[in-house]
Amino acid sequence: MGHGGGGAMSAELVENVFAPAFGGRTLATLGDSAVVELGGARLAFSTDSFVVRPLFFPGGSIGDLAVNGTVNDLAMSGARAAYLSCGFILEEGVEMAVVDRVARALGAAARRAGVEVATGDTKVVEAGHGDGVYLNTAGIGLVPAGVDIRPQRAVPGDVVIVSGAIGLHGVAIMSVREGLEFGVEIESDCAALGGLVDAMLAVTPDLHVLRDPTRGGLAAALNEIAAGAGVGVVLSERAVPVPPQVANACAVLGLDPMYVANEGKLVAFVPRREADAVLAAMRSHPLGTEAAVIGECVADHPGMVVARTAFGGTRVVDLPMGEQLPRIC
Amino acid sequence: MGHGGGGAMSAELVENVFAPAFGGRTLATLGDSAVVELGGARLAFSTDSFVVRPLFFPGGSIGDLAVNGTVNDLAMSGARAAYLSCGFILEEGVEMAVVDRVARALGAAARRAGVEVATGDTKVVEAGHGDGVYLNTAGIGLVPAGVDIRPQRAVPGDVVIVSGAIGLHGVAIMSVREGLEFGVEIESDCAALGGLVDAMLAVTPDLHVLRDPTRGGLAAALNEIAAGAGVGVVLSERAVPVPPQVANACAVLGLDPMYVANEGKLVAFVPRREADAVLAAMRSHPLGTEAAVIGECVADHPGMVVARTAFGGTRVVDLPMGEQLPRIC
Repeated sequence: MGHGGGGAMSAELVENVFAPAFGGRTLATLGDSAVVELGGARLAFSTDSFVVRPLFFPGGSIGDLAVNGTVNDLAMSGARAAYLSCGFILEEGVEMAVVDRVARALGAAARRAGVEVATGDTKVVEAGHGDGVYLNTAGIGLVPAGVDIRPQRAVPGDVVIVSGAIGLHGVAIMSVREGLEFGVEIESDCAALGGLVDAMLAVTPDLHVLRDPTRGGLAAALNEIAAGAGVGVVLSERAVPVPPQVANACAVLGLDPMYVANEGKLVAFVPRREADAVLAAMRSHPLGTEAAVIGECVADHPGMVVARTAFGGTRVVDLPMGEQLPRIC
Repeated sequence: MGHGGGGAMSAELVENVFAPAFGGRTLATLGDSAVVELGGARLAFSTDSFVVRPLFFPGGSIGDLAVNGTVNDLAMSGARAAYLSCGFILEEGVEMAVVDRVARALGAAARRAGVEVATGDTKVVEAGHGDGVYLNTAGIGLVPAGVDIRPQRAVPGDVVIVSGAIGLHGVAIMSVREGLEFGVEIESDCAALGGLVDAMLAVTPDLHVLRDPTRGGLAAALNEIAAGAGVGVVLSERAVPVPPQVANACAVLGLDPMYVANEGKLVAFVPRREADAVLAAMRSHPLGTEAAVIGECVADHPGMVVARTAFGGTRVVDLPMGEQLPRIC
């Protein structure tokens, strides 16, 4: 299961199996959106499969995830998603009412995100070879002129901003799946971030890095950026917005909120001179009201993420090894 | 299973579930490649999931299918595939050697087809919720200026050409899966058709319809075109190239070769004045040496495909209802 968890085992699979098989350029882009040239246009292109269990959960469904996940991957290149493809893998015997409900959720999420489902495919596998519904989406969108957002562009001095509270998606899934009750129902943060990114780009096209901290959480996202750019990251642990219900649930489950998946948040590396204006723009957007500066990019300890704890110490925030929460998306 | 078979039950799913959920424009394009505008470029965009069993078969593998299936969907709009996305859904416990072999086959097929795997994703599901490896690919490619190839453009008088022998993919899969022996090993025709379509377009950009007769075979492809354009199709049954080993295997299995899947063939509707030149160009291409005129498009019996039998009679070639051979691709 760890190979699909977005951590060190996933990275190993990409490096040792997929990159040699597919060729050089893929290495840099696999697991992320690629920016490609076609017909004179600069396009972002990305794909994700969705195997979340259960199919419906507080705050969303596999249909919402399938739209927002791919829309967000494109947004992390600065692109507004224009068209989605959608592949269904149905398990024989799944109720048509369930397929219908998933399709409607997907359609509604696409309309909210302003993206068109342009093409699709359906396959059916025998009972016992699937799990109701698996989905894949791929998406394409235009990258605006002058925008060049990628992990390699992080430089010492960049301010690290997160768009809001972390850990909600993972804890929401976990709580329904395991039948846990934490007093209040915890809803997934599942949302499409294209509008928030547009608001940030309106301040400056020179955002350096954007990343949606999904599988592996904020810790995996920051480690990948630190490794990709050869920079260090220093976080102020106290500044990371962890809602009390997430902190409580993680304490019960033995999880670290830094490693729990989000589906409607982004982390941004922004040039210091633009940071205040970008933060203000984020806070003015409905999906960024709780945006916060959580740290900075440094020249020290390249490839490593370090957190200053509330007690004045420091700890290394590693790339997660395997899978904390399987089938979260 | 029939809902994934590419026949009448699949069409019903698209019409009753996906089209209302996703919106109007999708209805015309779902299950096919869509032609969309982005950044001033006209792009073909398509997706397919692959759940074939077994993963490796005579003449190919799920990796070859995943590349060629999507490359061919784009080629059926006249587009040369430029970039592919690739999503793996792995079943927990699948041997890494198998994943590696699939990835290498996929990479090699992409290089042969001249398409770049630009982006990807991997998910892992628990044992008993998958079947080793499922794949999804999506692809994008440029549609050349002046090219407008789609089912609705079929008109009475068009000549119907098939690029070669039918039924090989379905019979190859069936024979290895069921452990059947037909004296000679039957190999899948799995191949990328971009080069063949380029050769046809070099004769004239005014090809009316192209279709790769995959699930549901030649019968499903022709019925969809007849229904989409509101025209009739008359076939000369004798002219349809059915190799003896396919005819023999189908006789044993109780199948009609017209309904068996192909993965390296196309059917073309070509204006009569261009038909000889297009046929000659096809026969000069390695993937079209056995190309043959198999019928014509007529104004009679709109939406219906009729075959003139070898004995001088006629029979209606219906859209297949459900699934002749499940998990063929």
